[in-house]
Amino acid sequence: MNTAPTPDGDLVTRSDAGGVATITLNAPKSINALSEAMMAALSRTLDDIAADGSVRAVILRSAGDHFCAGHNLKEMTARRTDADGGHQYFRDLFATCSAMMLRVVRLPQPVIAEVKGIATAAGCQLVASCDLAVASEDARFATSGVNIGLFCSTPMVALSRNVPQKQAMEMLLLGEFLPAARVAELGLVNRVVPRDDLEATAEEMARVIASKSPVAIKAGKRAFYEQAGMSLDDAYAHAGQVMADNMMARDTEAGIGAFTRKEPMPEWSGE
Amino acid sequence: MNTAPTPDGDLVTRSDAGGVATITLNAPKSINALSEAMMAALSRTLDDIAADGSVRAVILRSAGDHFCAGHNLKEMTARRTDADGGHQYFRDLFATCSAMMLRVVRLPQPVIAEVKGIATAAGCQLVASCDLAVASEDARFATSGVNIGLFCSTPMVALSRNVPQKQAMEMLLLGEFLPAARVAELGLVNRVVPRDDLEATAEEMARVIASKSPVAIKAGKRAFYEQAGMSLDDAYAHAGQVMADNMMARDTEAGIGAFTRKEPMPEWSGE
Amino acid sequence: MNTAPTPDGDLVTRSDAGGVATITLNAPKSINALSEAMMAALSRTLDDIAADGSVRAVILRSAGDHFCAGHNLKEMTARRTDADGGHQYFRDLFATCSAMMLRVVRLPQPVIAEVKGIATAAGCQLVASCDLAVASEDARFATSGVNIGLFCSTPMVALSRNVPQKQAMEMLLLGEFLPAARVAELGLVNRVVPRDDLEATAEEMARVIASKSPVAIKAGKRAFYEQAGMSLDDAYAHAGQVMADNMMARDTEAGIGAFTRKEPMPEWSGE
Repeated sequence: MNTAPTPDGDLVTRSDAGGVATITLNAPKSINALSEAMMAALSRTLDDIAADGSVRAVILRSAGDHFCAGHNLKEMTARRTDADGGHQYFRDLFATCSAMMLRVVRLPQPVIAEVKGIATAAGCQLVASCDLAVASEDARFATSGVNIGLFCSTPMVALSRNVPQKQAMEMLLLGEFLPAARVAELGLVNRVVPRDDLEATAEEMARVIASKSPVAIKAGKRAFYEQAGMSLDDAYAHAGQVMADNMMARDTEAGIGAFTRKEPMPEWSGE
Repeated sequence: MNTAPTPDGDLVTRSDAGGVATITLNAPKSINALSEAMMAALSRTLDDIAADGSVRAVILRSAGDHFCAGHNLKEMTARRTDADGGHQYFRDLFATCSAMMLRVVRLPQPVIAEVKGIATAAGCQLVASCDLAVASEDARFATSGVNIGLFCSTPMVALSRNVPQKQAMEMLLLGEFLPAARVAELGLVNRVVPRDDLEATAEEMARVIASKSPVAIKAGKRAFYEQAGMSLDDAYAHAGQVMADNMMARDTEAGIGAFTRKEPMPEWSGE
Repeated sequence: MNTAPTPDGDLVTRSDAGGVATITLNAPKSINALSEAMMAALSRTLDDIAADGSVRAVILRSAGDHFCAGHNLKEMTARRTDADGGHQYFRDLFATCSAMMLRVVRLPQPVIAEVKGIATAAGCQLVASCDLAVASEDARFATSGVNIGLFCSTPMVALSRNVPQKQAMEMLLLGEFLPAARVAELGLVNRVVPRDDLEATAEEMARVIASKSPVAIKAGKRAFYEQAGMSLDDAYAHAGQVMADNMMARDTEAGIGAFTRKEPMPEWSGE
């Protein structure tokens, strides 16, 4: 395993092995709060990975006992002394945060959230923004901003695209913690495992994705989110074009050829 | 508990306590059929509550053994003698009903459906239109219009935004009753409790919502439905603005301040 | 039971009884692969049924031990020798396949997928495209194209409208088989039954649908998919118009009349 250079000291670390980049949120004393510095570090790490053809899958892990507790409220409160009471700063902050969440969605490689302890507010949103999520049995999820007067409006965007309407509303209005088993029923996480199996489960899922043709994975992930909001006709027109293009990749020709000849899959060239 | 003036005799009653308005559909002999008079009474009650800053959460309850059996078919049948066979009347009737359902969705305060017995057709739609729903174990749900030749097309609008596609189709095409436990799995209700605990469960859920900052709840509920149909980018742009505005509320400043100082939440001023 | 003329030899057979048309994919040696000929045969059979007022419900069944394994990869591979490497052929092929899937969605009569054995790639898409689905306990579902370098981009269009986002992504990225019980939890099938009860379950479901007013079923199915992508206001405006029109059908007048007089439902005239 080699460790790539990590920006911003150690707020976010990255280590790569076998085509899998593991990003670790590394501010456990603040429960990995999404401070300005943390969001900048995570955004830059995602941008680096987007441009790195050697990475085929990503795990989003956390240092310490918890995943992420959302925004840094002290940092935000400090800006209330701005001339406008912080209004413009808050606009910019939420735009920055949303852009970071969209980086996860738009990353060419699939991202697996690996969740233990608490994932609250923008931390819960980060789970919802990943393509897949694995949680330990002890993990707990909440959009708890409502408890302190700040409705989780941006987390809601991601949450409501993962969880049925009334159950998303319940999380947002009541602000209660839900255990991993319940959010798995609701669709927010894919698998729940014992704490001791958490890392291995995420790593195995990432390994499986990294074993697939990167051309297919990249085109497919992108098309997934592109077609999601389209009409059925438009979605089919778009997906049909994507799939015809996918057929033209050298790897796809090799893969289908091997399959029809009942041979093992080739090493993927990435082309 | 004080009882506010109730319009339209006693078709709909309202009683307020502790910031929670409880609306009761009060025509148990007709299984709370949504007659013209009932829809008018419920619409006016919702309009009153929308304008009443003292109300922070709403329970939609029913008198008698059942929640609501949908439209009043005898009243509708009487209009078949109109010159056009009732066509314009039916258009107006469904428009009135849809406007009533949208009043629930657009009400500033969250609405909890409290469901016992049967909730069929537009009665099932009313449950789907509420933000949250609690049901007793004996409650049964159906979009049963198909059984008498009238497909539940307007109920479908609300149902299909609460329940997965194939399960919504099954309810609409087969017209069968589903028990509360099943519709909870499908997402149509949040909680299923014994009949004896139904009212207390709805009241506790309303009490929790009424204990939150009304500024946050109002902005959040509204943004939830606004962003639901938007693209991911538009939804984030909108929700980010809503959240920055939420930060500027006096209550939010007080709430976040109390939280960071590890003090109890303040009394919310509503500003 | 009378057997209607079957186009294209016996790639697809059709038999009608009691208002239910049963279409059978009849190429078990190729696991009912969606070859060009198979897609043409199925499309023509669907077009025939669309124009046949005697059919009120459709079952999509398979000969052999499996439902459908998706596209015919050998047929596709043969076109790699085209001047453009097959690119235009693949575009046309996926357009033809998408048009076939849309024929199922737009068929006036509801279609029930009856699934045993495997349903993979476009075979899984075919299940997702049907209005309802019944599966035997042994049935297994996968969007497995990713395993051979061809992401299931067009199957994704139907799958992601049936299954929650993260669980659809898991199927698409990992390419693993999921058992019937799991996809029932996810929403892709309505009911899971023992293998010996599969045909009877689909037939009973079709019989129930065929017993309803065909005017109501046809208008309702069409409106379901039309309103799905609309805003809430537009969906209500459209559904209200559909429902007012439904009220004007002779069958609906007879059905509601019988219901209010507590008489049995009439024989439906179809008008």
